[in-house]
Amino acid sequence: MTFTSRTPRVAAARKLQRRRDRDQSGRFLAEGPQAVREALAAGVVVELFATDDAAERYADLIAHAEVVSLVSDDGLAALAETVQPQGLVAVCEQVDVPLKEALGKKPRLVAVVAEVRDPGNAGTILRTADAAGAGAVVFAGDAVDPYNGKCVRASAGSLFHVDVVRSPLDVVTPLREAGLQVLATSGYGADDLDTLADDGVLAAPTAWLFGSEAHGLPPALLDAADRQVRVPIYGGAESLNLAAAAAVCLYASARAQR
Amino acid sequence: MTFTSRTPRVAAARKLQRRRDRDQSGRFLAEGPQAVREALAAGVVVELFATDDAAERYADLIAHAEVVSLVSDDGLAALAETVQPQGLVAVCEQVDVPLKEALGKKPRLVAVVAEVRDPGNAGTILRTADAAGAGAVVFAGDAVDPYNGKCVRASAGSLFHVDVVRSPLDVVTPLREAGLQVLATSGYGADDLDTLADDGVLAAPTAWLFGSEAHGLPPALLDAADRQVRVPIYGGAESLNLAAAAAVCLYASARAQR
Repeated sequence: MTFTSRTPRVAAARKLQRRRDRDQSGRFLAEGPQAVREALAAGVVVELFATDDAAERYADLIAHAEVVSLVSDDGLAALAETVQPQGLVAVCEQVDVPLKEALGKKPRLVAVVAEVRDPGNAGTILRTADAAGAGAVVFAGDAVDPYNGKCVRASAGSLFHVDVVRSPLDVVTPLREAGLQVLATSGYGADDLDTLADDGVLAAPTAWLFGSEAHGLPPALLDAADRQVRVPIYGGAESLNLAAAAAVCLYASARAQR
Repeated sequence: MTFTSRTPRVAAARKLQRRRDRDQSGRFLAEGPQAVREALAAGVVVELFATDDAAERYADLIAHAEVVSLVSDDGLAALAETVQPQGLVAVCEQVDVPLKEALGKKPRLVAVVAEVRDPGNAGTILRTADAAGAGAVVFAGDAVDPYNGKCVRASAGSLFHVDVVRSPLDVVTPLREAGLQVLATSGYGADDLDTLADDGVLAAPTAWLFGSEAHGLPPALLDAADRQVRVPIYGGAESLNLAAAAAVCLYASARAQR
């Protein structure tokens, strides 16, 4: 039996494109073979929807899913947010953990996206933090939902590799109590990233705080942090794009912590 | 007199949203106060369209434009590609220079986007290269048009700060002849970025080659380069997003060249 966009199970899964339904159900959608593979490896796939073609092409993935439902092209199009999901969409259990649990593992590198509302930026920072060896990424305050489809796609699977945390905005005290120095990024920060690297400051376990591109970090977080750090600007640009600045900071830490 | 979307001058300017018309006319559109300010400073504004409100709010910009045309909200909406252009769109002369001219200034840091087709990625790399102190950014081969509206916006004004070059794909020889070592980025590169930094290699004048996120660099460019360099991955991610990888590489050079 092949489901269509009007089959109740498909219509119900489609609702997970909305935050309210994700929050209520504790589930979300992952689309495309890469994300589905990572979700299966993480053991969080509740149901895998696949077209006939995809079921054949990705037989290895199908074999690892407990519940597989074949869908028509139209059914898949209803579930997918991209034009090329390559025939696969999985309903997954949400994977985030409490802050206490993530910090209990004593990560040496943590990224905090505080009130970052752009899902592409947040997902890219999640991917970059994972690449730089971070143990946890904290979505703090009124940040984008980490299970937003665009964020999931921008994370390119990293949502399943690091501890993702959703937390209120006042994260500085618990981060510090977990032995992390807390570095807030700001275009007007008193400390220059390259100078901190020269002085050996970045070798210590570190949590980086990143604010929204439009507003930066909330003053309360800037004030609570151990340092306010700016990425040096060597040319005529006024600033860096948020995800680029995060990449430079996280990799400066990764290099210092080797 | 206030122009509307049907005024021939507005309709003609609107055509610059299309590459063919940009290529034929040698002009492009810049929207919003930041881009317009930079374009005016660069002396390339041919005509500035402004709503009544914007003409009042940005009187300093209006005063510096030789030709100002007031447009209705509907006329501005026709010219703008974003929902919030803040009432300003400028027709500008294209600013790119020949490769020979850019290299004649002996830049110590150059970024090449080779066949990068995503305008957001290309514009972000342009902005990051500017911030890192690069003298030139080369759009090589079948790369996105640097005057694509999304690229212009992602560059956040950097289009007007560095030498932008459009060139065929075979850039390695002229770059090397200008005294630059040519480093090609590749997820499979034999050289690790952090090791090159440790060994002092990055202090030399450098041109970085970045390929498309989907296909990487063309084999001919990888082979022609002096080294193939990978950004180290310390965690579970397979790779970095293109613009994030470029930020890490360009800032590693900037730091080494201080």
